[in-house]
Amino acid sequence: MDAVRLMAEQRLPGIVVCESDGRPTRILPGTQVLRFVIPRYVQDDAALARVISERGAERLLGELSGRKVRDMLPRRPDVDLAVANPDDTVLELAALMARTHSPLVAVVQDGLLTGCITLPRVLDVLLMPPSA
Amino acid sequence: MDAVRLMAEQRLPGIVVCESDGRPTRILPGTQVLRFVIPRYVQDDAALARVISERGAERLLGELSGRKVRDMLPRRPDVDLAVANPDDTVLELAALMARTHSPLVAVVQDGLLTGCITLPRVLDVLLMPPSA
Repeated sequence: MDAVRLMAEQRLPGIVVCESDGRPTRILPGTQVLRFVIPRYVQDDAALARVISERGAERLLGELSGRKVRDMLPRRPDVDLAVANPDDTVLELAALMARTHSPLVAVVQDGLLTGCITLPRVLDVLLMPPSA
Repeated sequence: MDAVRLMAEQRLPGIVVCESDGRPTRILPGTQVLRFVIPRYVQDDAALARVISERGAERLLGELSGRKVRDMLPRRPDVDLAVANPDDTVLELAALMARTHSPLVAVVQDGLLTGCITLPRVLDVLLMPPSA
């Protein structure tokens, strides 16, 4: 619930999940984080999603409390983790995002997460008029 | 270029492409819009993306000018278009986003686009404490 709330509040396009030693192991776009909130059986059954009332939706969220991000991760790890090095070029980041379909890239140095870069930020830099 | 700039400026997670009669025909997440900016051959060749200079990146963008969104669309239309009706529930929207991996849903009435809803907005509503 904390992870979902953080993403919502900061308008992040996704989250990076790290092990306790700081190694990022998963990068989940927002659409995958939604899967934390909405149980599989609701996702797969459009009719069911339709009839669940506001109060029912609230109960779904209630089921989240106490559950850890670890419990909600999709079983299959991302084959191609959207991870960059501090000295990568902006174009490399953009190509990585396009290839991995990830609007969020983890920047890693010596195996540890040092920051994240979002797609709008990459676009900003790409579109910025070059300095004279 | 206008489409990419619009997305960057408004921090949109993607764009909805409509025909001239107002029917939405494609919904492209930001990571697909990046493919407008970065030619396929650069996406597929990490070494190439690395050696292209800032000036080279600028030239890539220059190649975009005059090109239409229509020219840049991926050939295969999205099988499952992220389209909702005005009377869909928030939970239906969330399930649709999760299923289609689209952080952007087009709201359509009588076949015409009436608005868009983004993933952070859906999260806001889901996480909002229910009104008394």
